[in-house]
Amino acid sequence: MGRTALWTAIRDTLVRDISEGHYPPGQRLPTEAQLSERFGVNRHTVRRAIADMAEQNIVHSRRGAGVFVRHVPTPYRIGRRTRFRQNLSEAGRVPERRVLSLETRGANKQEAGALGLGKGEPAHVYEGISLSDGAPLALFCSVFPAARFPDLLTHLDEQGSVTKALEKQGLSDYTRKSTEITAKAASKTHATLLELSVGDPMLRTVAINVDTSGKPVEFGRTWFAADRVTLILGDGRIQQVV
Amino acid sequence: MGRTALWTAIRDTLVRDISEGHYPPGQRLPTEAQLSERFGVNRHTVRRAIADMAEQNIVHSRRGAGVFVRHVPTPYRIGRRTRFRQNLSEAGRVPERRVLSLETRGANKQEAGALGLGKGEPAHVYEGISLSDGAPLALFCSVFPAARFPDLLTHLDEQGSVTKALEKQGLSDYTRKSTEITAKAASKTHATLLELSVGDPMLRTVAINVDTSGKPVEFGRTWFAADRVTLILGDGRIQQVV
Repeated sequence: MGRTALWTAIRDTLVRDISEGHYPPGQRLPTEAQLSERFGVNRHTVRRAIADMAEQNIVHSRRGAGVFVRHVPTPYRIGRRTRFRQNLSEAGRVPERRVLSLETRGANKQEAGALGLGKGEPAHVYEGISLSDGAPLALFCSVFPAARFPDLLTHLDEQGSVTKALEKQGLSDYTRKSTEITAKAASKTHATLLELSVGDPMLRTVAINVDTSGKPVEFGRTWFAADRVTLILGDGRIQQVV
Repeated sequence: MGRTALWTAIRDTLVRDISEGHYPPGQRLPTEAQLSERFGVNRHTVRRAIADMAEQNIVHSRRGAGVFVRHVPTPYRIGRRTRFRQNLSEAGRVPERRVLSLETRGANKQEAGALGLGKGEPAHVYEGISLSDGAPLALFCSVFPAARFPDLLTHLDEQGSVTKALEKQGLSDYTRKSTEITAKAASKTHATLLELSVGDPMLRTVAINVDTSGKPVEFGRTWFAADRVTLILGDGRIQQVV
């Protein structure tokens, strides 16, 4: 009875530490040895507390790397109008985008096909990282027809937002024509940029947005850290499933 | 020049072997040593041929396990009416479902919430494996309100098809209300059932289907082998992206 009380007390303390932001999502907890010392108990008791938190999906172990605080997945709506900032605000998260590169170059075969351009015609390419409450959510690469939106890169640089930058270029609305979704294991580059381990699952979406006349205006590929997002289709949110 | 011709000839022979079904999707190729012997060349030449096939996404290496023939992903439409057999037929694949279990038991909290039942009210649970052209595509678990469809398990057993079994129970149509999508790493159980390696990425969908009055009739969870499927939303197919 005394023993049970001990590990549950340690678990409750750690859960409180996490909920108060002392250990934010993605952070590694102190080692068993360190926690044993902090609480003045043996490792078995610490292990029991951690195992219970893992079962409740509060933390998870990565082989050889330690025990990490789980992210609470951001619900991300894929609908007729899929907008990053609006989606995150609706989820109660702070949206942020970090630019990795902004460039104009010839469209490759796939980009040209998706945007209805000739291969090699100029395309604006915007690569970056989306963040949710400060944690990397996704890596994205968006491609736009350069001839139609000549000053888009300047506007993207100033506005940060795709929706606002397109607005500045005279496009007041656009809608999602199609989305393809699959899952991939994180490569070394993806892992580094998204703060994942190599091999961790990512959700990969490939999407085309069109203007009101159906003409393609954006071809986007996104790699989401799977532990930080749930894509939502249709109406209403199903309760969180583990 | 002679050397170039050699490895490309070996690659072309292997590609033909694969396209003729000699090495079907998911199968391991012979080892480098075996291929060296078969073609009477050194391992470097075999390695060059394999590397080129890997670059073209025809095969992929699994650390320590060998080189495997890639699956060509089945395009799988998630729409207002998402039907397994129809989806696979449209993709030109042969659909098949293997039953793992059919049982009636009390709904757990999540199932009850999704189906609008009280916790513990009787639910029919249908678990199985979906196959595409004979290869495991997904593991599924579908839950139905038992009071509304009393003889559903018998019909599922006889018909194999959810759509037909619900029809036999008087439900002529149902539509997708919501779908949640994320990615997970395959556990040992998932890996065994789906013929994956532990840790391979899976797409996990959680969906609710409703009748024409909006009442939930099916709560389904599906774990897709990510290398064998691309989920498609909206109209039209984007060209295959690697």
